[in-house]
Amino acid sequence: MKIEGKEYRTIWFEENDRSVKIIDQTKLPHKFVIKDLNNIKDAVNAIKTMEVRGAPLIGGTAAYGIVLAIMQNNDLNFIRQSSDDLIKSRPTAINLKWAVDRMMEKLSGINSNEILDIALKEAKEICDEDEKFCKNIGLNGLKIIEEIYKKKKDTVNILTHCNAGWLATINWGTATSPIYQAHNKGIPLHIWVDETRPRNQGANLTSYELNEEGVANTIIADNTGGILMQRGEVDMCIVGTDRTLSTGDVCNKIGTYLKALAAYDNNIPFYVALPSSTIDWNIKNFKNIPIEERETKELSHIEGLDENNDLKKVLIYPKKSKALNLAFDVTPAKYVTGLITEKGICEASSDSLKKMFR
Amino acid sequence: MKIEGKEYRTIWFEENDRSVKIIDQTKLPHKFVIKDLNNIKDAVNAIKTMEVRGAPLIGGTAAYGIVLAIMQNNDLNFIRQSSDDLIKSRPTAINLKWAVDRMMEKLSGINSNEILDIALKEAKEICDEDEKFCKNIGLNGLKIIEEIYKKKKDTVNILTHCNAGWLATINWGTATSPIYQAHNKGIPLHIWVDETRPRNQGANLTSYELNEEGVANTIIADNTGGILMQRGEVDMCIVGTDRTLSTGDVCNKIGTYLKALAAYDNNIPFYVALPSSTIDWNIKNFKNIPIEERETKELSHIEGLDENNDLKKVLIYPKKSKALNLAFDVTPAKYVTGLITEKGICEASSDSLKKMFR
Repeated sequence: MKIEGKEYRTIWFEENDRSVKIIDQTKLPHKFVIKDLNNIKDAVNAIKTMEVRGAPLIGGTAAYGIVLAIMQNNDLNFIRQSSDDLIKSRPTAINLKWAVDRMMEKLSGINSNEILDIALKEAKEICDEDEKFCKNIGLNGLKIIEEIYKKKKDTVNILTHCNAGWLATINWGTATSPIYQAHNKGIPLHIWVDETRPRNQGANLTSYELNEEGVANTIIADNTGGILMQRGEVDMCIVGTDRTLSTGDVCNKIGTYLKALAAYDNNIPFYVALPSSTIDWNIKNFKNIPIEERETKELSHIEGLDENNDLKKVLIYPKKSKALNLAFDVTPAKYVTGLITEKGICEASSDSLKKMFR
Repeated sequence: MKIEGKEYRTIWFEENDRSVKIIDQTKLPHKFVIKDLNNIKDAVNAIKTMEVRGAPLIGGTAAYGIVLAIMQNNDLNFIRQSSDDLIKSRPTAINLKWAVDRMMEKLSGINSNEILDIALKEAKEICDEDEKFCKNIGLNGLKIIEEIYKKKKDTVNILTHCNAGWLATINWGTATSPIYQAHNKGIPLHIWVDETRPRNQGANLTSYELNEEGVANTIIADNTGGILMQRGEVDMCIVGTDRTLSTGDVCNKIGTYLKALAAYDNNIPFYVALPSSTIDWNIKNFKNIPIEERETKELSHIEGLDENNDLKKVLIYPKKSKALNLAFDVTPAKYVTGLITEKGICEASSDSLKKMFR
């Protein structure tokens, strides 16, 4: 998708200098910075500090992380240690582990002369596949938006939470992919963008990327979705997910659950868009999902531009105060209208998921 | 209540210099500043810019606003114009109008020699009454907390939204009054404080005042309440209200509705604390409550302390982005477990409210 009019993916391998390039998302929306990852430490760090974020992009970065490990030290023990480090870098994203496992399986038994080429090809394949899946999610979700537009014959208002945009994937996004497809087809859209505290990825990334693609959008505080729904100003919700259980329960950025409750209370469809790589077929009870607790500085400090256009970080809480920073919550399946996947739309239920994917 | 160990009210008349003093709440928690209001413009401005906020304190400030108008120009037309200006300064707070109407009624027919003394006495009376009502709200709400503590025999976890603390009233607060009463009785408490975007009055004011009184508390993003309730880490919610309809529907700071939905979904009691002056006996349908829309700079810009301990305002949104800043939402009566008033606890229903107050 476009930034300042030029097409990008969120991660790519540059043949010239044999490095992996990413868009440093901690600098957005204030600065657009392309960053080099040169070794495994850079890759782990990029995931941990959220220079890259979003389940599919974390998967892509982990795949290229294995490539970087091989380039750094083509030794099986080192590569294995690196794969462990990658998996531990963020506990909630299910397809981080999926991507690392897929890479390691592909590389198992390969001799050290060939291993780099095969790893590079597989990492690119993981990214290409993600792009294709995201595009298909968009084409499937498009049908829902078209349906609403046919009935309403006026601008379709869609609420989204956090960033499940193209910046969270390799391209297109998950939750935003149906939006971009509908926009490209000329359906008039307006997106309510949840700010998404504490890291404000809705404001910083979703609104930013929608602006760059020319999709009308308005940032709102996370508290605002409820009254907009009460007033009939939301036609549908689409969010992404970090992990969807085989039961249909959806683990996503903290606050998603609250919007799903409000949508349910106001009879507004609430969809979750996901590539099937984010489905967790093992955990059955959502209380067993590990919920990442991040450092409280993400809450108490915030960065922005001062009056001189310089990036400044300020403390916004009382000095004596404590805080707690949980990164995810779980939306029970009963509040989810449907799952928009690369294969089609299914119900958020065990039966429906099995029928589509097993 | 205490700030830096010294007892204060949020507003008072100082005989020495014949001015009204307030705590400038836009400077908290970073600076503790006492500000003089010297004329009607100062009073209107203090309400508009939220140097004072919270329904009861807005009422008190409006009452003293009439006093300041009389001191400035003891002319009936000027006083009437001033009362109109005060009422228009914030549209949602019901007892702003209540306080102004009460003052104007008291002063009707009074000759200009006596009018200032009577106005001063009535403004003080309004404030004293509010303090007494808030204390009674606390004593009534205390029973609920004692009940939970008796069963749980461990720290009671209470979630609150925004600031319905003593800083929102003259003293004690509404939602915090039961908390302070329970704390003073030695019941172990821990308060989850919703940050409360966009103005962060939870973090800036509630956590601040709880710290100053020594009540354990943790600030959380507004998105966090849901998962804490799913995990059983919230025993009850108490919030304040700007306007409660005679139907039991509760208009309060934006985001309250989302917490009420989560509490309902997790079978957690959700209480609203209010003085009866905030009951609106006229509006029957909550869709007719005027919802204040405030300037978007409250969302896109945020103030905090930089590394030199200086207050700095920074832009946190993309420069091209639009925003919408609604200040309130409405929690339908069915999600409210009970109303804690100065007279006792009643159901959030027309019958129950009528029985208690009519």
